[in-house]
Amino acid sequence: MAEKAFGAIELGGTKTFVLIAKDRSKIYSRNIFPTLSPEQTIPDITNYFRDQAKVFNVKLESIGIGSFGPLDLDPKSKTFGYITSTPKQGWQFTNLKGKIEDSLQAPVVIDTDVNASALREFQSLLKQDINCFVYITIGTGIGGGFIINGELVHGLVHPEFRHIKIPHDKHIDPFIGICPYHRDCFEGLASGPALEERWHISPSLLPKHHMAWELEADYISLALMNLICTISPQKIILGGDVMHQVHLFEKIHQKTRDVLNNYIKSKYLEDHIQELIAMPYLQDNSGIFGALDLAMINNS
Amino acid sequence: MAEKAFGAIELGGTKTFVLIAKDRSKIYSRNIFPTLSPEQTIPDITNYFRDQAKVFNVKLESIGIGSFGPLDLDPKSKTFGYITSTPKQGWQFTNLKGKIEDSLQAPVVIDTDVNASALREFQSLLKQDINCFVYITIGTGIGGGFIINGELVHGLVHPEFRHIKIPHDKHIDPFIGICPYHRDCFEGLASGPALEERWHISPSLLPKHHMAWELEADYISLALMNLICTISPQKIILGGDVMHQVHLFEKIHQKTRDVLNNYIKSKYLEDHIQELIAMPYLQDNSGIFGALDLAMINNS
Repeated sequence: MAEKAFGAIELGGTKTFVLIAKDRSKIYSRNIFPTLSPEQTIPDITNYFRDQAKVFNVKLESIGIGSFGPLDLDPKSKTFGYITSTPKQGWQFTNLKGKIEDSLQAPVVIDTDVNASALREFQSLLKQDINCFVYITIGTGIGGGFIINGELVHGLVHPEFRHIKIPHDKHIDPFIGICPYHRDCFEGLASGPALEERWHISPSLLPKHHMAWELEADYISLALMNLICTISPQKIILGGDVMHQVHLFEKIHQKTRDVLNNYIKSKYLEDHIQELIAMPYLQDNSGIFGALDLAMINNS
Repeated sequence: MAEKAFGAIELGGTKTFVLIAKDRSKIYSRNIFPTLSPEQTIPDITNYFRDQAKVFNVKLESIGIGSFGPLDLDPKSKTFGYITSTPKQGWQFTNLKGKIEDSLQAPVVIDTDVNASALREFQSLLKQDINCFVYITIGTGIGGGFIINGELVHGLVHPEFRHIKIPHDKHIDPFIGICPYHRDCFEGLASGPALEERWHISPSLLPKHHMAWELEADYISLALMNLICTISPQKIILGGDVMHQVHLFEKIHQKTRDVLNNYIKSKYLEDHIQELIAMPYLQDNSGIFGALDLAMINNS
């Protein structure tokens, strides 16, 4: 008889990660392919699971998806589990959960890619008694996943953090920003594509001492100040491509303290800001392993 | 034998409200006195409870306090239940919970005044299946109380919202702001005292069509945009003295929609923003009845 296993999908804007595992420690198989159209990529995903389940003689109990959004995550909605008004061509109003469930005949648990990452990063901290946890990704886009009082936060839509407004001094930085909705919101100023448009070079090629990183750390610190003043997280993980620039962390620690200006009286913030605002434990693997956590959420 | 009852205290910066009740519907007694020094006001509070408990022949099971802050709300801390670094003269590092517990020999449940208000306002909405709720007060100060996934949020310190940074166009509004830590943060621009210093008149005397209210609604809307983009609340209650200007609500609904600029795809936000961003159910009574809820939290 086939052994029980779980499937995980991280559906990103450019790449799709898939994985089959018995549990968090035993991985049967994993793969990556480009995210093309839904007509191409959804069968790529379901064929992978069908083939590999046969190869390893396993039966998928459930499948977790961490997907780019926006998603409809309201279980009472008619379009629950759909990708909704995404700018990504062809994917608008795709019934992601439904199509994969129908094709694989297994229950699918869906959430945002950032929530999946948040879940995985949070699990690795469980001993620390944290009731307000935030995972932020700064890359092609900016996103935020929140775990508060033991559960992922799903509000009116889903938390995102990306489009908050921060002070933007145009005398210092005349760049108008790239957000199609708000121009110079946080994502419009500080995402990877914003950096690229601002400096006419891929951010990964910008040298460590380029003033771009000072400005980037300024914007991230203002956004973190707002986050800290809004819900007072005990842990903030910063992931995503832009944060591969690890030298940013030191700048962010310093500048966040500077903008808060000793308002928050917390010894932890004063003495351990490098633990409060930290790198992801699983680096870029949080998303796919978080999707596995979603699959196992009712089975662990 | 004395009947069981509960005590409630709302300790504000200028006034202290006290109340004894059998439950949420049967009030034995309530009173108000000025908040003076801790040496004067704490005995005022404890004498009130001792006297009135005798008058009504009740025994206080527990007492709830909603207090101005900042408070130490970490149960593991040595100064748990203290008012900490408040600017309010004489109250720095006052063991509020301990002193009242010792004097009245009854357990005290303490939280911020805004959290108490949030709790009461949230209780009146319980049927609505809301897992992300925010109460904001805009008055002498600005504060925020968050109930997420069924519980009040207590993070690293406690959420406050007040000191977030929002865009401030000095060409439109050259006012430098009054926050001693950050000058033109949200509280520095939009609290009651900020309005008073900006326009040289008590905000309650500013006429409805004064441009002050346009500017005020602009700042509140930017702050709400950040709140909505950060944790996506299903309900935002705006209380406090400044919000007694009920004409502000319509401006805020319009301007919040304008600054979000159709980014958030939510029918509720599009069609029911006046329910999403609403007046407090209990007006200015949320705080003291929220303190009663705190007292009853382990007894109801």
